[in-house]
Amino acid sequence: MSLLLTNVGSLVTNDPAQGSGGLLGLVQDAAVVVEHGTIAWVGPAAAAPATDERFDAEGRALLPGFVDSHAHLVFAGDRTAEFNARMSGQAYTAGGIRTTVAATRAATDTELDANLARFVGEALRQGTTTIECKSGYGLTVEDEARALRIAAAHTPETTYLGAHVVAPEYADDPAGYVDLVTGEMLDACAPHARWVDVFCENGAFDGDQARAILTAGAKRGLIPRVHANQLSYGPGVQLAVELGAASADHCTHLTDADVAALASGDTVATLLPGAEFSTRAPYPDARRLIDAGATVALSTDCNPGSSFTSSMAFCVAVAVREMGMTPDEAVHAATVGGARALRRTDVGRITVGARADLLLLDAPSHVHLAYRPGVPLTAAVWRAGVREV
Amino acid sequence: MSLLLTNVGSLVTNDPAQGSGGLLGLVQDAAVVVEHGTIAWVGPAAAAPATDERFDAEGRALLPGFVDSHAHLVFAGDRTAEFNARMSGQAYTAGGIRTTVAATRAATDTELDANLARFVGEALRQGTTTIECKSGYGLTVEDEARALRIAAAHTPETTYLGAHVVAPEYADDPAGYVDLVTGEMLDACAPHARWVDVFCENGAFDGDQARAILTAGAKRGLIPRVHANQLSYGPGVQLAVELGAASADHCTHLTDADVAALASGDTVATLLPGAEFSTRAPYPDARRLIDAGATVALSTDCNPGSSFTSSMAFCVAVAVREMGMTPDEAVHAATVGGARALRRTDVGRITVGARADLLLLDAPSHVHLAYRPGVPLTAAVWRAGVREV
Ligand SMILES: [Zn+2]
Ligand SMILES: [Zn+2]
Repeated sequence: MSLLLTNVGSLVTNDPAQGSGGLLGLVQDAAVVVEHGTIAWVGPAAAAPATDERFDAEGRALLPGFVDSHAHLVFAGDRTAEFNARMSGQAYTAGGIRTTVAATRAATDTELDANLARFVGEALRQGTTTIECKSGYGLTVEDEARALRIAAAHTPETTYLGAHVVAPEYADDPAGYVDLVTGEMLDACAPHARWVDVFCENGAFDGDQARAILTAGAKRGLIPRVHANQLSYGPGVQLAVELGAASADHCTHLTDADVAALASGDTVATLLPGAEFSTRAPYPDARRLIDAGATVALSTDCNPGSSFTSSMAFCVAVAVREMGMTPDEAVHAATVGGARALRRTDVGRITVGARADLLLLDAPSHVHLAYRPGVPLTAAVWRAGVREV
Repeated sequence: MSLLLTNVGSLVTNDPAQGSGGLLGLVQDAAVVVEHGTIAWVGPAAAAPATDERFDAEGRALLPGFVDSHAHLVFAGDRTAEFNARMSGQAYTAGGIRTTVAATRAATDTELDANLARFVGEALRQGTTTIECKSGYGLTVEDEARALRIAAAHTPETTYLGAHVVAPEYADDPAGYVDLVTGEMLDACAPHARWVDVFCENGAFDGDQARAILTAGAKRGLIPRVHANQLSYGPGVQLAVELGAASADHCTHLTDADVAALASGDTVATLLPGAEFSTRAPYPDARRLIDAGATVALSTDCNPGSSFTSSMAFCVAVAVREMGMTPDEAVHAATVGGARALRRTDVGRITVGARADLLLLDAPSHVHLAYRPGVPLTAAVWRAGVREV
């Protein structure tokens, strides 16, 4: 069965060879044909072939579903009070991430699965058709493996983040925890994960520890990605590039050498403005990275501590306001940028052969994602050709 | 017929005498009874009276519908390209507000009404149950009166803003335009308006002109409100307080004397963070105003030029991030603050006798409006007791 989406006012293909070219390969008055869950044809509406079914986009904008390449969604518990205290300028002595670790360990599989399903659904209703999901709130062999098993039922983009922080039981023996993360925990988690990640930061894991963890993961077939240079300058970005990581995430504090490393390698710089928004931290400089030639992705970092947004549209708007991105660059980063950060060529673009992941906006242009901040603009969502919203 | 909303996890009453008191008068495990479109009872769920119907809020948060006291929604035309150019750092020589004036004049009544209805509906779906609407894109006697007639069919909060900018026909005769605004145009508009407003700013109307316009409006029974101190220091705020205006809007550039004037009078300081967000301008300092004792409202300023958001939740989140407001203060300002700016005591609070304008969040706390920026959190909306969303 074939479906024609026609009367698309403005189509973001992310293929510079299409339409008016440029970063987004914009086609005006466009149509798209979907067959067997993939894109079978793209072009001007007037030239579209006959199909079994027809959907009238009524002049609205169509773009690839968002690719959110960085999210922490297997968790339980509530940290509203912590956020409220932080934003109210009050001291808050409760446990931060340890609160979430304790609640996550205490939760049943069913509870964790239901929480995750709720967030994946919430993201889908906002146009996110590919989402990455990390472990990292279990921090035991059993709890990390459980998180990844649960995540794998919802997305193929599962990331082993046993090295989120040192587990509380190893507070006095961080080297012992690295041994666990690179040993028994890795053995238990590798079958359920595609990626290995580490939070390389003062107070979490230093450069040598991060290297050991990523290298051990790579030996088990997991591809590295790194939480790098979020809170301070550090070795994370250069380590990510050196090890051929798919992505260096946050990239808030970068030296010129860090920028040059990202520009010269294949490691995507994934920027997470929700984290800076929700912690009142300075934003990363996307303009500097783009001008240097680095590939930039935008993602939500959705997690209950530092960035509890699941809205890629919100990240686009903030990236334009605060990070020197144009609306086109931000939309590019939130779609094909995320796909590159996940080494996916089948999503993030509307080209023949790509998976038919489509977001129809209740707006005439993708620019409205930045122009109308906070306004829910989802008109319809298809995932692999199936209408989901 | 009576309706019980019960199992409300957290209820914002905006009545400090309720529940745990404080700014929001929060009641946990609460219930609300609605009769004949108004609130008939508020209290702990366990003590609720019997009713004809029952709605289970399932532990979620209930708050008064948002009161958006500043919006420009009677317009036609598209300014996406202008926004895109501004945020892309490109020169853009087209007409700005004049683009909208030309398109609005050229539109039919039906087109303007349909546009307005679309925005009012979009705002309602985001929890806004009271919305103000200004003229100001007609700038002729006929077109300003038409805008207000159309607006009055959607909201009682209609504002005559003939003094938005000097009409293009009067570019060389601003005094003549002020005569029109205070004469024939006022005669035509006053029957359809509750408020009179003026954009008091360099390049628009100076202090003397603003005084003449507001005074003329007041003589016709319109209550003043003022676009004041948005782009630069100026006389707008002090004029607003002197004339007993309901609200001074923007308040971005304030001297200590301006702050003291707002703190001493009844004029509400209405802050519009969407405008600063979408123009990359510095934000107003809500903390300074609140600490001085001024009443603060938050509104969208929804308009196609400088702030095209209709999301009060977005404004709450940005106010917390950027303007020194606590989540409680921002929610207060977006509900009862807006009500004060419109001199309404029947909206913006959930107290016995108030209109049953209710926003149920898909979240356990009102704090989530700031904690989860960009995420659509509307679970249900009632307006005057009628379920609308
Ligand atoms: Zn993260
Ligand atoms: Zn305005």
